[in-house]
Amino acid sequence: MNIRGFVDAIRDQKRVQFIILRDHTGKAQVVYQRNENDDAIGEAISSLMPESTVEVVGKVIDLPRVKLGGLEIAVEKISISSIAESPLPIMEDSVLDKRLDWRHISLRNFSNFLIFQVQTTLERAMREYWIKHGFIEIHTPKLMAMASESGSELFEVPYFNDWKAYLAQSPQFYKQMAMAAGFDKVFEIGPVFRANPSSTSRHDTEFTSVDMEISWIDSYEDIMQLEEKWLAHILSIVAQEHGENIKETFGVDVVIPSLPFPHITLAEAREVLKERGHIIGHKDDLDPPGERMLSEYIYEQYGHEFVFVTDYPATVRPFYHMLQDGNPELTMSFDLLWKGIEITTGAQREHRIDKLVCQVKERGLGLEPLQNYLNFFRYGCPPHGGCGVGLTRLLMILLNQQNVREVTYLYRGPNRLSP
Amino acid sequence: MNIRGFVDAIRDQKRVQFIILRDHTGKAQVVYQRNENDDAIGEAISSLMPESTVEVVGKVIDLPRVKLGGLEIAVEKISISSIAESPLPIMEDSVLDKRLDWRHISLRNFSNFLIFQVQTTLERAMREYWIKHGFIEIHTPKLMAMASESGSELFEVPYFNDWKAYLAQSPQFYKQMAMAAGFDKVFEIGPVFRANPSSTSRHDTEFTSVDMEISWIDSYEDIMQLEEKWLAHILSIVAQEHGENIKETFGVDVVIPSLPFPHITLAEAREVLKERGHIIGHKDDLDPPGERMLSEYIYEQYGHEFVFVTDYPATVRPFYHMLQDGNPELTMSFDLLWKGIEITTGAQREHRIDKLVCQVKERGLGLEPLQNYLNFFRYGCPPHGGCGVGLTRLLMILLNQQNVREVTYLYRGPNRLSP
Repeated sequence: MNIRGFVDAIRDQKRVQFIILRDHTGKAQVVYQRNENDDAIGEAISSLMPESTVEVVGKVIDLPRVKLGGLEIAVEKISISSIAESPLPIMEDSVLDKRLDWRHISLRNFSNFLIFQVQTTLERAMREYWIKHGFIEIHTPKLMAMASESGSELFEVPYFNDWKAYLAQSPQFYKQMAMAAGFDKVFEIGPVFRANPSSTSRHDTEFTSVDMEISWIDSYEDIMQLEEKWLAHILSIVAQEHGENIKETFGVDVVIPSLPFPHITLAEAREVLKERGHIIGHKDDLDPPGERMLSEYIYEQYGHEFVFVTDYPATVRPFYHMLQDGNPELTMSFDLLWKGIEITTGAQREHRIDKLVCQVKERGLGLEPLQNYLNFFRYGCPPHGGCGVGLTRLLMILLNQQNVREVTYLYRGPNRLSP
Repeated sequence: MNIRGFVDAIRDQKRVQFIILRDHTGKAQVVYQRNENDDAIGEAISSLMPESTVEVVGKVIDLPRVKLGGLEIAVEKISISSIAESPLPIMEDSVLDKRLDWRHISLRNFSNFLIFQVQTTLERAMREYWIKHGFIEIHTPKLMAMASESGSELFEVPYFNDWKAYLAQSPQFYKQMAMAAGFDKVFEIGPVFRANPSSTSRHDTEFTSVDMEISWIDSYEDIMQLEEKWLAHILSIVAQEHGENIKETFGVDVVIPSLPFPHITLAEAREVLKERGHIIGHKDDLDPPGERMLSEYIYEQYGHEFVFVTDYPATVRPFYHMLQDGNPELTMSFDLLWKGIEITTGAQREHRIDKLVCQVKERGLGLEPLQNYLNFFRYGCPPHGGCGVGLTRLLMILLNQQNVREVTYLYRGPNRLSP
């Protein structure tokens, strides 16, 4: 038999040596009976430090008294591919910032590996759903000549010809372009960038955004229906493939949500929170404590982990949202909260060029910088809408983590740009 | 019946009106018999311009003499979601640059939609293969504190704390980090950035890179075997699902390659080219005409569209390549050519920290800027290697296109940053 992995521990005795070898699937015990006449193997084992990598050829011995599945391997040949320096710069319980400095070592533990197994399954399940429903995968450019959202929190990149480029804050404009191109249904999973100076547990300067956009909708209701079906599909796959493991490792149940998800308008939500002593201004969005309280209320009422909060005022939404017919103070939009945290913003977009131009002007935004975007709507565009989800927020909530840093492969924030 | 789409053409006669309606699946004919007493529908149809979007409710009439599948729909209700301005800014045969200015209009034709259907299938087939073989999907950061490749052609991004960030030129360093983290097999499909001032048909400043990396290899042979099996899988899926359509639209056969792919060392390739009158210096990489001639030679000899060119000199490869044992002038590396164009660079990497440090010094590179990268190899790392493929180059060759601009959703080059 041939096994290979990282040296988890060594017991180096005079007559017999033990190595606990580890890979991401588990651990195995390796044993070597030293030989006085020819001790090359014994000396090689003595030279090892924890976290070195080795490959062992040996015989499997069935030893029920040994843990690790009751298997032990007797070394016949060992080849050392790397010797780790000692001591290691971090331990399992080092503070977060230190663990992020040495992310590749901290990622070696089983629970961290599980995070990325779950991420792989999540994304696979997302794409399965989209592809089954005729979506096209797109890759929108991350270098843009215009701001993709509000114009604040932009990273600038000096470009050729003394131009200024900006890093995309979202694929918003370009997934809408796909609707104007007649693609009908698109998705993208890719990086977005926010020059946000805050270092909270939910924020980062770069994260993976999960986006979808569809045409020929009647209302933002169609987007909510798409998203809830999509989420139920994803979570059922994750529950099936990793549910037990997640429960054991992170102590959380993966609940497959029932359909439809509860809905509440922002105005209603404000009333509910007011009754519970939490006041949110008439023109304001929910704040994080408000989000938590609202999710608690919904859970009490409906036993549901999710809630769509709908009908946000135009004042707290970007200019490209469609306004409600007969009630232009409100947008055809929603957020989705999961266990007290916002994971999605979605909406029907304004596809009618004359109305869109009005909305740009009413906000006091210049038409000129938005010309390329506005052009998407001048030569025909179907009604459309979509939503975006932060991949790490989704993982954070799914796995009951307190910080996006724990579920991001390599976190980027205002004070962290390495490794 | 309910149909919706873009107005492809209108024939507006006194008694009867025709609309050819188009979506990405095809075209249909819509007919309306005008009514002198109540002509609201007729007037609506008269107001349409080509490329407007409409939804029609009507009765299907079976009319074998009508083309478009022999179906015609008699309008009962029409709703106009957008009226296109007229005339359109481009035509089907406008020059490339103009078509890129109005990319969303140019993407409306069937052959362009097919490109992105094929892209969707390509990526699905790639991920199917990886996931079946136990790969983990990662998203590496695109903002980095160090250069990911040579240090030239870097985009700089002013960051917080007066730091300078760089846009990733490849996920190279961070996919290797996954190997040091014990992930064993990883893949990523994501954007990379090259501040390359050249505007050739193969170059862009941003493109989608397809990357994989695996551990516990014995040699770069293992990477070539992985890649050829992976490509054969992908191409068999594309041939099955789009082969006929690709043949009809782009006039090219999707050939499922036989395994193994032909191999040739760079030194042998140089001899072959010399015999054919094309001289390449001893220290040089293949040039584009050399690549074309070599692929022609391989096709003549083996009837194969692919060829691995192996054993590149260290002088034309980055510092992190593993050098050949006993022949340190050569690296354990390869390129893959398809129909005369390079689509991949791959290699076994140097995972031994002492050798890696030597190689950095020999190149005259500073250790300090590479410290974060070098740290990945100080605390144990298995032998590993991998390769990267440009998604648009792959599509370009697959669909017999002459320019990456034609197969990129939104091309970015030194002189193009919009729309």
